[in-house]
Amino acid sequence: MRIAVIGGTGKEGRGLAVRWARAGHEVQIGSRDAERARERARELAAASGARIAGSDNDSAARACEVAVLAVPYAAHAATLTELKPALAGKVLIDLTVPLRPPKVRRVELPPGRAAALEAQALLGAETRVVAALHHVSSAHLGDPEHAVECDVLACSDDPAALEIALRLIADLGLRGLDAGPLVNAIALESLTPVLLHLNKRYQSPGAGVRFTGLG
Amino acid sequence: MRIAVIGGTGKEGRGLAVRWARAGHEVQIGSRDAERARERARELAAASGARIAGSDNDSAARACEVAVLAVPYAAHAATLTELKPALAGKVLIDLTVPLRPPKVRRVELPPGRAAALEAQALLGAETRVVAALHHVSSAHLGDPEHAVECDVLACSDDPAALEIALRLIADLGLRGLDAGPLVNAIALESLTPVLLHLNKRYQSPGAGVRFTGLG
Repeated sequence: MRIAVIGGTGKEGRGLAVRWARAGHEVQIGSRDAERARERARELAAASGARIAGSDNDSAARACEVAVLAVPYAAHAATLTELKPALAGKVLIDLTVPLRPPKVRRVELPPGRAAALEAQALLGAETRVVAALHHVSSAHLGDPEHAVECDVLACSDDPAALEIALRLIADLGLRGLDAGPLVNAIALESLTPVLLHLNKRYQSPGAGVRFTGLG
Repeated sequence: MRIAVIGGTGKEGRGLAVRWARAGHEVQIGSRDAERARERARELAAASGARIAGSDNDSAARACEVAVLAVPYAAHAATLTELKPALAGKVLIDLTVPLRPPKVRRVELPPGRAAALEAQALLGAETRVVAALHHVSSAHLGDPEHAVECDVLACSDDPAALEIALRLIADLGLRGLDAGPLVNAIALESLTPVLLHLNKRYQSPGAGVRFTGLG
């Protein structure tokens, strides 16, 4: 698939881009600064042996079938407002966790209860939002040889979009699980501060989550 | 310890009572109906070989060191309002999940964002609230021989109360994890509808959650 990783020059975005490109997807990383995105894409391509392109966010969003949003919550609404026309008709996988630095180990509910609900409200029915990939440590994602000990919950109000997201999660080498309607993004997003607390409390380089009893 | 299980005649409360009594704790199950509580306590004691007493909720709360609240969300505020004097000076472990039947597979944020935050606000600083035990399937808890494949997240603003709760969780045969401040109960409570969705979606008799990377 043609995938745009918006905010693809960040740590999490880079790991996703490399893993999807290696799985055979056509990946473009987007950044507010097109030159920076192209440069980072060249570095990633050279380091990973996978083909990855770079461009400004808007061009990447226009060219893709599935856009993946990997920006800090502080840039979430502004980025989506800017990209709204480019994202019409697309699937958006939103990874955003509404953290409020420096207190990143406390749950902070945003005004719309979840970043993904805010994204869906902002983009309207033209874009089908899936919330997913909040719990995978970027350090683990960034090392393509590393087996990631973490399931990936994904939720959406659109079954077809959810199916696409679950396939893309499988292509990352991870187990994706259907976590229900988009309102359940409240649970997914708010688990991240708990994982960050576990990291600190138990001196873990990256706590993950696994679901048991699913056969 | 002297433990009162408020709402102890329900499925989850019964499993907890038996496991703690077997671990050597002095357990009293409470119910609005004292006779019903005594009868259920006799049955549990006979079935499990452990000593368990029964009484009305207020007597159980007055007699205990640690109270465990296992009532449906619809009875949460009323039960706590009634027991507020009896719970002063005690630790309260709140298991409540703000589900809104029949839509129990959708996250429903209560007015106070989490049942445990509502409990702490209602009871005031005299009672130290810990949120925990939202994810263990009552079917698994109720079978004391069954190894439960589920970690137990616990959060509180009171470190000593949290420590007590973590020891009691260990006495159930489960791994308890410090999940941070009480506000993180938002994450713990909202994960339950996701587990209920996973049960239905993947035909599981009881999905659980494990945290990885904690050494």
